[in-house]
Amino acid sequence: MDIERYFLETLQKSAITQGIGDDGVVLANLPKNLVMVLDLFSEGVHFKREWFGCEQVGYKALMVNISDAISMGAVPQYALLGVTLPKKITPAEIRALIKGIGRACVEFGVRVIGGDTIVGQTLSLSVSLLAYTPKPLYRVGARKGDLIMHTGTLGSSYQALHTLLRGGKVSSHSKFYAPKLKACARFMQEARSILHVGMDISDGLFAECNRLSKTNRLAFKINNPLYPPHKRAFLSGEEYEMLLCLAPKHKLKAYRLAQKHRLKLRIIGRVQQGQSHYHPKIWHA
Amino acid sequence: MDIERYFLETLQKSAITQGIGDDGVVLANLPKNLVMVLDLFSEGVHFKREWFGCEQVGYKALMVNISDAISMGAVPQYALLGVTLPKKITPAEIRALIKGIGRACVEFGVRVIGGDTIVGQTLSLSVSLLAYTPKPLYRVGARKGDLIMHTGTLGSSYQALHTLLRGGKVSSHSKFYAPKLKACARFMQEARSILHVGMDISDGLFAECNRLSKTNRLAFKINNPLYPPHKRAFLSGEEYEMLLCLAPKHKLKAYRLAQKHRLKLRIIGRVQQGQSHYHPKIWHA
Repeated sequence: MDIERYFLETLQKSAITQGIGDDGVVLANLPKNLVMVLDLFSEGVHFKREWFGCEQVGYKALMVNISDAISMGAVPQYALLGVTLPKKITPAEIRALIKGIGRACVEFGVRVIGGDTIVGQTLSLSVSLLAYTPKPLYRVGARKGDLIMHTGTLGSSYQALHTLLRGGKVSSHSKFYAPKLKACARFMQEARSILHVGMDISDGLFAECNRLSKTNRLAFKINNPLYPPHKRAFLSGEEYEMLLCLAPKHKLKAYRLAQKHRLKLRIIGRVQQGQSHYHPKIWHA
Repeated sequence: MDIERYFLETLQKSAITQGIGDDGVVLANLPKNLVMVLDLFSEGVHFKREWFGCEQVGYKALMVNISDAISMGAVPQYALLGVTLPKKITPAEIRALIKGIGRACVEFGVRVIGGDTIVGQTLSLSVSLLAYTPKPLYRVGARKGDLIMHTGTLGSSYQALHTLLRGGKVSSHSKFYAPKLKACARFMQEARSILHVGMDISDGLFAECNRLSKTNRLAFKINNPLYPPHKRAFLSGEEYEMLLCLAPKHKLKAYRLAQKHRLKLRIIGRVQQGQSHYHPKIWHA
């Protein structure tokens, strides 16, 4: 049984949900649009303690949530933290954890406004972010003929995971530890008006294109034959780059804005009539 | 080392926090006041699987958060769920969990608007609630001479825990499984204008009075000699009753409102000059 899927499907049938499907949810009955996101970051599921120092855990736990907010065209403002600390954690590790959380908060102007802390078996963070946006960007909204683009380069997170699984070492500057989102955040704010669709690439480009195809009832055809050198770039998860759709006439404007913020932007395909499906499975290392 | 306390103190020193101290936090820069709360409900910390069915877990996880929102004079509206499901959970248990969550949501008009689900070692819920209030009620605001009151009766949660620890059985209608908050919520809305302080009793009356004494820099003197028959009522945690302060001249109005909503309301003391401290430790069963 796919436990997560069964939970989600049962929840959605329960008639108590509203608007689940995007990276976050927009509360549109307020004058300024609010976006709420929640993502867990848990030992044994998202990270191993051998691979991640506590500071890296704190930083990345915030960043995976900040990435969701950015992908919806929103500016993160407030965070609530649900923290489970393992019994054997040391004061130095606690300070490191908070240092990592603090670095992400300072970088993106986020205030921690509350939460809950317990002592349990493993290290686990539940982060809820509240973000503002004048005009939310959704996963649905693609139009026939739209260009499909993504920010940054893909594949390094997969490579890092592969290296760690083989017992190797990965630089602490790697995106695997520290998603790079500052330029992305600035670009998304300025490019918002020309974007039709936005989401972050957390499960691999193929998997996300499949999702967008389903949601938009259109084909998301990847047709850049030169890119990437390795298919694994299309399968690599936890990339925290933005996957975007926009009209071809805005291509130049998008490139100019990307250049202004020193952000890589790559056209990888087009939205077409029909449906598309790519094999989203990552090879086991 | 008190791990939780060390984490919280280090976090508060980090200069990334804002407004931690109440049951929730008010985001006052929005036209309608928003209150955000986050509470964890975790196996091995807040409940044992032998004692709690999955439906009871789902229900109580929501209720401990709803209680926080009510204590701040707010009406809960939206929930985000961070759910960790154990590997061995069955489809029937997942359905029961969602049934419990759904019961609480329907009872209080809450919509589940998002979240995250993972598969891990133990069953754990992180619930974030977004609530609205025209006028938030805080832990600070008590005045000399105020009456100290609480809703409902205290002690049954301790008694239930004691029974379970000795291997006994507790009715599923017990407040230990299902905090009773509907009448409370209605009362709090109507009584809001006469209340100076509000919080829910989650760590026992003595512990909460100590907190209020510290926060308000006033003594919270419990002086009802007839109540309770057992001291344990003052130590019993997870009561999810409201602890309130109001001016003596509003006593009658408070009683009338309580009667209207069929809610017990008990005066237990007075706010005085100075500081007060009661021994908040619960006896071990």
